[in-house]
Amino acid sequence: MNSQALKLRRIAIDTYHENVAYMHRECEVYRAEGFQALSKIRISTNGSKILAVLNVVDDDAIVTPAELGLSEQAFQQLNVCEDCAVSVDHAEYAASMDAVRRKINGERLMLNDFEAITKDIAESRYSKMEMAAFLVATGQNSLDRDEVYYLTRSMLETGQRLSWGELQVVDKHCIGGIPGNRTSMLVVPIVAAHGMLIPKTSSRAITSPAGTADTMEIFAEVNLSPEKLHDIVRKHRGCLAWGGTARLAPVDDMLISVERPLGIDSQGQMVASILSKKLAAGSTHLLIDIPVGPTAKVRHMRAALALRKLFEYVGDQLGIHLEVIITDGRQPVGRGIGPTLEARDVMQVLENDPNAPADLRQKSLALAGRIIEFDPDVRGGQGYAIARDILDSGRALAKMNAIIEGQGAHSADFRPGQYCYEVKADKTGMVTSIDNLKMAKIARIAGAPMDKKAGVDLLCKTGDTVSEGDVLYHVYAEFMSDFEFAKKLIEQENGYVIGKESEIKRYDAFI
Amino acid sequence: MNSQALKLRRIAIDTYHENVAYMHRECEVYRAEGFQALSKIRISTNGSKILAVLNVVDDDAIVTPAELGLSEQAFQQLNVCEDCAVSVDHAEYAASMDAVRRKINGERLMLNDFEAITKDIAESRYSKMEMAAFLVATGQNSLDRDEVYYLTRSMLETGQRLSWGELQVVDKHCIGGIPGNRTSMLVVPIVAAHGMLIPKTSSRAITSPAGTADTMEIFAEVNLSPEKLHDIVRKHRGCLAWGGTARLAPVDDMLISVERPLGIDSQGQMVASILSKKLAAGSTHLLIDIPVGPTAKVRHMRAALALRKLFEYVGDQLGIHLEVIITDGRQPVGRGIGPTLEARDVMQVLENDPNAPADLRQKSLALAGRIIEFDPDVRGGQGYAIARDILDSGRALAKMNAIIEGQGAHSADFRPGQYCYEVKADKTGMVTSIDNLKMAKIARIAGAPMDKKAGVDLLCKTGDTVSEGDVLYHVYAEFMSDFEFAKKLIEQENGYVIGKESEIKRYDAFI
Repeated sequence: MNSQALKLRRIAIDTYHENVAYMHRECEVYRAEGFQALSKIRISTNGSKILAVLNVVDDDAIVTPAELGLSEQAFQQLNVCEDCAVSVDHAEYAASMDAVRRKINGERLMLNDFEAITKDIAESRYSKMEMAAFLVATGQNSLDRDEVYYLTRSMLETGQRLSWGELQVVDKHCIGGIPGNRTSMLVVPIVAAHGMLIPKTSSRAITSPAGTADTMEIFAEVNLSPEKLHDIVRKHRGCLAWGGTARLAPVDDMLISVERPLGIDSQGQMVASILSKKLAAGSTHLLIDIPVGPTAKVRHMRAALALRKLFEYVGDQLGIHLEVIITDGRQPVGRGIGPTLEARDVMQVLENDPNAPADLRQKSLALAGRIIEFDPDVRGGQGYAIARDILDSGRALAKMNAIIEGQGAHSADFRPGQYCYEVKADKTGMVTSIDNLKMAKIARIAGAPMDKKAGVDLLCKTGDTVSEGDVLYHVYAEFMSDFEFAKKLIEQENGYVIGKESEIKRYDAFI
Repeated sequence: MNSQALKLRRIAIDTYHENVAYMHRECEVYRAEGFQALSKIRISTNGSKILAVLNVVDDDAIVTPAELGLSEQAFQQLNVCEDCAVSVDHAEYAASMDAVRRKINGERLMLNDFEAITKDIAESRYSKMEMAAFLVATGQNSLDRDEVYYLTRSMLETGQRLSWGELQVVDKHCIGGIPGNRTSMLVVPIVAAHGMLIPKTSSRAITSPAGTADTMEIFAEVNLSPEKLHDIVRKHRGCLAWGGTARLAPVDDMLISVERPLGIDSQGQMVASILSKKLAAGSTHLLIDIPVGPTAKVRHMRAALALRKLFEYVGDQLGIHLEVIITDGRQPVGRGIGPTLEARDVMQVLENDPNAPADLRQKSLALAGRIIEFDPDVRGGQGYAIARDILDSGRALAKMNAIIEGQGAHSADFRPGQYCYEVKADKTGMVTSIDNLKMAKIARIAGAPMDKKAGVDLLCKTGDTVSEGDVLYHVYAEFMSDFEFAKKLIEQENGYVIGKESEIKRYDAFI
């Protein structure tokens, strides 16, 4: 209960979303309070206070016994200057951990529980361990649809919320998992050319070989200040920017930073994550794309339908106009996998190149058509034709070029990596399946998305007939070590199955 | 996939059971590999490799861009000298996390799953987050009794196991939660005086006002090397040492370091923790004490019975002779709460002082009697009488003194803290209950166990009649700030209820 003053010191260590405090082992407060490493402590000064996990230091160069060190995050959060006097004591547990423990015990939580939890997380009262406990306790099927709604609403309440001052702000989101699926880069210019407001922010790839932000970066700057993003959207009705700077729904970012290394996710958390982000960004109308296929995230039509209902229920509760489209996720979309190759595919579609990948064009038109039908002036069923006209007439290309200019154009170069490996058919027959997961892994091993020119270029897709020795796809890499590693991986399994037409899995066979 | 060499640097930061690596933000490997803070990385050199969580540093004084820093734990584990060249790449997830994810999904795990998990934990492949995920996934009632057995067996297999070379090695363990319950310090000398081998190691207090190790420390050294502990046990047939140096069942220690800050526990994990530790310590015969009461850890007789069965089942599977005794946990045992005051109680019982607390004496005799009946030469039902004879004759005191001398005697001083506060009855009547949790909290706030002389001394127990103004208990503190804080707490609630005899909860009323 003693709380002698220590001198605050900023330690230039980035501990991401976790506050860490550094105290010398000879520090009197440490000895008197009986702290131990990994204890949670409370640091207070002038009415400002934060919680942090304690690391014990034996090196005066890092902190002296008279000092308390704080990692960058913790220092910024405490928001006082260095050399301030701070006092330290045992932190009480975050009060909302009681609710987490109730959830662990199988109880159903209420809105106020989720509000308390997200508030504590937003204010950094949860350690990574506690966030992991929350995620596991609310993972899998342990949240009912009302709990998912409460969680979404609570996450939304903890951050700021953009307002665009228009009746319709549209957006689209794909739950992911399909390589080459760069439809946003076609949907945005088509929909914006129709005149609808579509301020699209995207993520960079985390586990995939390319995110929309990585691919857009081939053409233009994507790291935009909120002010610049606003200007571009006002002027061009759309943008394709990286969402990382916006700090919308911060609790979602913090939970994802724990969820991802754990490799856990659940439908409830996914729905809450997507909807809280989209609502925070000011969307009023949202189209969700759920690809289904044996190597997609959602593997059965029944699971896709259940997920669709959950999206619809939570969306309705939160007052967003939401539609879900279930798409064919049996193989990659387009030909290229990796930022440069995917950018090339996008530009071919926009330029109405006869060689443009037809599946990417068709899927993008279908999605854009559905969004255009959110427009009250469009007659039901006419969206697709409008989208096609916009694309065919070159208006989509013109809009894309305007957005690229607005964001700051890069000199796009579609040449892939210097090393190229041809993967050939080992027998004659029909391509009956292409594994999404394996193709993504090959592209990543080859260097994507860090090396933008690395990736995979598919020359054959499911349903194509091939002869033994025909090239199925090219693998490109910029670095020899990556190239060798990718080749080794392909030797084990190349992701393609060649057989008979009857062996192709039918899309509706997943039902 | 690049893995350029960095120079190893030892960073004098104690991160407890978690490996942390420090990399400069300008480090080429960091930039090339696309790591981010909190990524898990693998550090390799000369065939030795470890996993660590990455913290990113912006201060050359901590690490330079050409170096890789490791926290104390990680440095020791890698076990090479400073300035060695190390290479760094992305860590694959611990393979056994797949089993944890299956458990999260509600599957039942098998022995090989638990073995893989405990092996990965023992080898520091799990982050704190991952351990939290495992604990929550296996918490509450999600482990069936066979899974508890698998977990116990796996934890036992990861550490070393002591062997005493005797047919009977006895031990006792209380699941905790009752202040003043220092029976081990009486059971050990009685049982050892009977000639049985009882090498007792105990914990220090973590959430309670005193552990057996803290209390024994009033009399003697408790921090013993394994060799010294062995010598004492050989010579005196028993000891009362701190268990922290033994490194038995290390996975248990690592899980506890996560479990405790999360404030979660479950019966399955408790049983696995206790039994793996006792078996690793070489025990062949074990008595488990489960106190039951409205403010005890186990609050209902039915829960105590279920826990008893679980202990028995797992114990039988592992081949330990195990008995469970369910005891009255409705109020603190003895009078003193806090190391010095509890040591005084113990010595009064050993010295057959007429003022010795009768409940501590009776409970200790009952436990010692049950252990003595493990002796094949003792007739069933005779254990209590033998224990009583050993205590009454002074042989227990002589044995305790021998153990104290063996461990290294301290000059015991039973004077409590300098500040004393009298808590008085606010009405006339009978003491109908004393709250274990509140009394423990008051003693802790007063300074126990860090200040050995701090604590609470109970003058009245449940069933005593008191007049308004009679002193119920004394609170002792060494520091004024603690003293004031304890007084403030007591003003809110003093832990005693005074009423009518009929209001005393009956022990069997919990059934």
